[in-house]
Amino acid sequence: MAQRNVYISNMPLDEALKKYREHLENPLQSESVPVKSTLHRITFGPVFAHRSSPSDPCSAMDGIAVLSERTQGANEKNPMQLKEHEDFEYVNTGNLLPENKDSVIMIEDVKPVSEGVIEIVEAAYSWQHVRQVGEDIIVGEMLLPSFHKVRPMDLGALISGGVSSVDVFEKLKVGILPTGNEIVQDLDALTRGKIIDSNSSVIEGLLTEMGCLTKVYSPCHDDPNALKEAIERGLGENHMLITIAGSSAGEKDYTVSTIEALGEVVVHGVAIKPGKPTILGKIKGKSVVGLPGYPVSAFFAFEAFVKPLIESWHGQMDEMSIHEGVLTQRVVSSLKHEELVRVTLGEVNGKWVVTPLNRGAGTTMSLVKADGVLTIPRLSEGIERGESVEVKLLKPLHTLSERLVVIGSHDLLLDIVADRMPMTSTHVGSLGGVMALIKDECHMAPIHLIDEKTGIYNISTVQRFFPNRKMALIKGVKRLQGLMVRKGNPKGIYTFQDLARKEIEFINRQKGAGTRQLLDYELSKLGISGGDINGYHREVVTHMAVAVAVASEGADAGLGVYSAANSMGLDFIEVGYESYDFLVPYALLEDFRVQRFIDLIKSPYFKTQMTEIGGYALEETGDIIEIGETYD
Amino acid sequence: MAQRNVYISNMPLDEALKKYREHLENPLQSESVPVKSTLHRITFGPVFAHRSSPSDPCSAMDGIAVLSERTQGANEKNPMQLKEHEDFEYVNTGNLLPENKDSVIMIEDVKPVSEGVIEIVEAAYSWQHVRQVGEDIIVGEMLLPSFHKVRPMDLGALISGGVSSVDVFEKLKVGILPTGNEIVQDLDALTRGKIIDSNSSVIEGLLTEMGCLTKVYSPCHDDPNALKEAIERGLGENHMLITIAGSSAGEKDYTVSTIEALGEVVVHGVAIKPGKPTILGKIKGKSVVGLPGYPVSAFFAFEAFVKPLIESWHGQMDEMSIHEGVLTQRVVSSLKHEELVRVTLGEVNGKWVVTPLNRGAGTTMSLVKADGVLTIPRLSEGIERGESVEVKLLKPLHTLSERLVVIGSHDLLLDIVADRMPMTSTHVGSLGGVMALIKDECHMAPIHLIDEKTGIYNISTVQRFFPNRKMALIKGVKRLQGLMVRKGNPKGIYTFQDLARKEIEFINRQKGAGTRQLLDYELSKLGISGGDINGYHREVVTHMAVAVAVASEGADAGLGVYSAANSMGLDFIEVGYESYDFLVPYALLEDFRVQRFIDLIKSPYFKTQMTEIGGYALEETGDIIEIGETYD
Repeated sequence: MAQRNVYISNMPLDEALKKYREHLENPLQSESVPVKSTLHRITFGPVFAHRSSPSDPCSAMDGIAVLSERTQGANEKNPMQLKEHEDFEYVNTGNLLPENKDSVIMIEDVKPVSEGVIEIVEAAYSWQHVRQVGEDIIVGEMLLPSFHKVRPMDLGALISGGVSSVDVFEKLKVGILPTGNEIVQDLDALTRGKIIDSNSSVIEGLLTEMGCLTKVYSPCHDDPNALKEAIERGLGENHMLITIAGSSAGEKDYTVSTIEALGEVVVHGVAIKPGKPTILGKIKGKSVVGLPGYPVSAFFAFEAFVKPLIESWHGQMDEMSIHEGVLTQRVVSSLKHEELVRVTLGEVNGKWVVTPLNRGAGTTMSLVKADGVLTIPRLSEGIERGESVEVKLLKPLHTLSERLVVIGSHDLLLDIVADRMPMTSTHVGSLGGVMALIKDECHMAPIHLIDEKTGIYNISTVQRFFPNRKMALIKGVKRLQGLMVRKGNPKGIYTFQDLARKEIEFINRQKGAGTRQLLDYELSKLGISGGDINGYHREVVTHMAVAVAVASEGADAGLGVYSAANSMGLDFIEVGYESYDFLVPYALLEDFRVQRFIDLIKSPYFKTQMTEIGGYALEETGDIIEIGETYD
Repeated sequence: MAQRNVYISNMPLDEALKKYREHLENPLQSESVPVKSTLHRITFGPVFAHRSSPSDPCSAMDGIAVLSERTQGANEKNPMQLKEHEDFEYVNTGNLLPENKDSVIMIEDVKPVSEGVIEIVEAAYSWQHVRQVGEDIIVGEMLLPSFHKVRPMDLGALISGGVSSVDVFEKLKVGILPTGNEIVQDLDALTRGKIIDSNSSVIEGLLTEMGCLTKVYSPCHDDPNALKEAIERGLGENHMLITIAGSSAGEKDYTVSTIEALGEVVVHGVAIKPGKPTILGKIKGKSVVGLPGYPVSAFFAFEAFVKPLIESWHGQMDEMSIHEGVLTQRVVSSLKHEELVRVTLGEVNGKWVVTPLNRGAGTTMSLVKADGVLTIPRLSEGIERGESVEVKLLKPLHTLSERLVVIGSHDLLLDIVADRMPMTSTHVGSLGGVMALIKDECHMAPIHLIDEKTGIYNISTVQRFFPNRKMALIKGVKRLQGLMVRKGNPKGIYTFQDLARKEIEFINRQKGAGTRQLLDYELSKLGISGGDINGYHREVVTHMAVAVAVASEGADAGLGVYSAANSMGLDFIEVGYESYDFLVPYALLEDFRVQRFIDLIKSPYFKTQMTEIGGYALEETGDIIEIGETYD
């Protein structure tokens, strides 16, 4: 077994960034760029006007230019006639004021008398309707300060101010070097055991948004010599190099020793999670940052170190905006590090609710789904549910208030809805959704809960949980539940009894899921206990996850809906139809987000989509059942 | 005289936009783009995962892969030895889980015994430290909905989800056609009477930020046939055409008649100011928008019509964020139209203050300086000072709270300060600054106010205006005031008496300006009244504006500082030195923005810059004089 780098430090984020900044100088020089190419570039110094605008007095109106003195005495009782080319000239807006004229009379106030002769009934005062020299811009005036990112409207002022070229910061060139034997860059090369390089594109996109020039290198193998060569080349061709993966202390993590050999490791290991195994290095005065290989870690380490570094070189601070909300789930955290939790936000009954997403460092989808980031500081054990928290927003707030907030049971139909209207859905099972509704943490809970006595779905459960609140059940779909097994059913699974066979590996849904309830209901009828079934305690949270586990041979059987089995090409043993409905507080029925939802599921579009997927019946979809008060 | 299009309508904005939308169809088709080129593109439909991620079970840790069953029974008392290649395999994070293994033990929990043999003291459970298939992404899962603008983190999910190309909206192609005989596109062609085309670059920049492809055409002359040809060509080559200028009802405004001849004018004339003479047209199903020629009008008409139109085609709504503040000046408006007022914002004593900028439609600098836009609705006569208003922000709020808010007298040194620290300055003269301080509308007022009895600057005035409040005067500069006259003094102006000569045209500063006070003080000593001086009532608001008026021969003389005269190459007749100081409430002396200012004006950098400009003495710069309470 090869040597391992055992030690990596746990330096607080602020301290690490400060230390690293002190080790580096701004590598950027200025370059002169034609004014029309300066959009989004950053000024190197102040930019001054080379000429005034207007540069000559000109007419601010369509009309006639006159010498004001010549018009004195004109009034309603004593109209005055003026001759063209003698007393006046016609001018349009923007025209130069003719020689020996100091005033403009609007065309509306001019009465034509004959060819070349007009009449006025009011005297003009001097400089009336004339744009004076420098009214907009005065030569020598500072148009833009240093460190200013040029916007479209700035272009107008620069051009009007007679500026032909601007000194701006050259673009920062950043090399991106993915590492690892298992990394490939093309889908075609993605064989079993290989991992596709998604990190480089994310980091490249973030750098592009900051105005950098990027170059992504071919993945470097886990070989110290190859890595040394790649780092030297990457640094030679750029101002800065970012390596991805291999930054930790594992057997094949050569990055830290290579940087040490070529220059200096300023920091290795920071107290943030995800993102701990980050390397902040310096080689020949240039910055080399080693980002961890897990996608979320790489993202947060970039945001924590690379972004502020480049921003300070650009003299920019593009802070994220902050919004307050109430945490819907307890988040525990270690005292050791600052933890960055991806969250979604939604506005429910005038309150902003903050719901944590999956915290795994490998889950790229948690970054896609995140509306913001909640920071749990070092030396905190976490935050309790119900506490007010501040969230750094990743999306504009107004897009979030449009959202229908859905918490509860999962079904593929939620994807169809989410494609057509703003929605955030969290999958915690039917009971979890009911609990969230009780606490006003969502607008709507999709549920499918069977009453063990009556066999009727949903209604009695709602009555039990909301004895004092009027609720509405928006009828959803009837969906086919059954056992999913591999194509051709190689292990001959036909009944719930078969699940208890020793050689059968089951994959289960989490507690509180309607499908879990259905399983337990069926097992109890047969007198089978969970402990009798291999894999009973292996839980996943969606039908699709069950189907994938069976399809990828991680399990032999699972209970779930037909649509999931069908989409993964599995065989399906029908158990029966169940009602998957949408529970909302009655008072929210008129909410525009709920209305938009009802309109959508009643639309022909929705029916077509569901029919295509298969395994659903939609007779009552969109009907409203009132529950509570009237039911007593 | 040519024919004029007399009638243009005054349609409310909402109505005009709605009407125009109903006339147009979304011209955009989809195109398939390689996944790595999709940054900032907009999805045409939902994007689904083509593969799961991970696609095979893999190790979530560095360690050894085992079959969990094989480890049962291991504990501290009964350590268990395992053989490599028989009982376990070494794995690194991300490695494929080897055949017949279902669990990973972290390397930290593994004790090497001999070559190929290790010991464990705890049994593994199945799927421990294993990333299961689809843990991040499940095949068939919706990765991105329709109408989604692809962000860097989305690229990661697309690539991990096995997506190789994405259907996105093709880029909207927009032609930009400036019109007008006087318009030129290059500085070299900018002769007297010509106007440089700044609008095209601003509109191009705004379209670029929206992801459009743009083409700017050569300016089209005011000729109906040329315009017809240019519009037909521009529409043929693009999805949409924007013409600039010529949209009104003037003699040479041919745009509306040309569009009418080629297609349909849907709206001509909307009730917004600036922006009224906007044309919303349609030719062969395509959109042609005629923007007004004044820069600010063009900008707002673009924001009001073109932007929402394109956004709706993109399925995006990039709303500006809103912030509340207190208006520092009364704004009057006409009942007829919605008026868009450019404003600056600043945070003073915990209150946000909103100050209107120059409202002329031609002032590009008002767009550059604006922090936001205040909308005064139709049917409103305006808004009183002190009222709370909502402002659409053009800049992020956190950059605004950094600002030192300065209201008062103008000097060139404010440019030097503004280049080195965040600052907003409004030039309303010394007394205007004192008034703003009384109402807590700024942090600091630059003043130069002479006491007519003692000849001492500033201190007695401050005592008079702030009898009950402790103030501090930050000493600024002594600056040389004098009469500015044209190079060589062709009219022989040497004294204030000369200003009263019949052939002399004067240019004055506004009431409340310290320089105006100085003039009136000197004139009263000589028994000259303002009415005796030509141009006494022609007012501008800065020293530079006075200098420009003299230099451009709009006036023969003006009173102002040496630096302004010098920068415009004027002759200068010295009147004497005056004290230009900075007044702040004593309680604000410790404010970080005020401190930053004091540090800056005491710096060697500042002294060098001021010496270079000339006409200043800096002996006491940055000294603090306390006024009030202790002075009673």
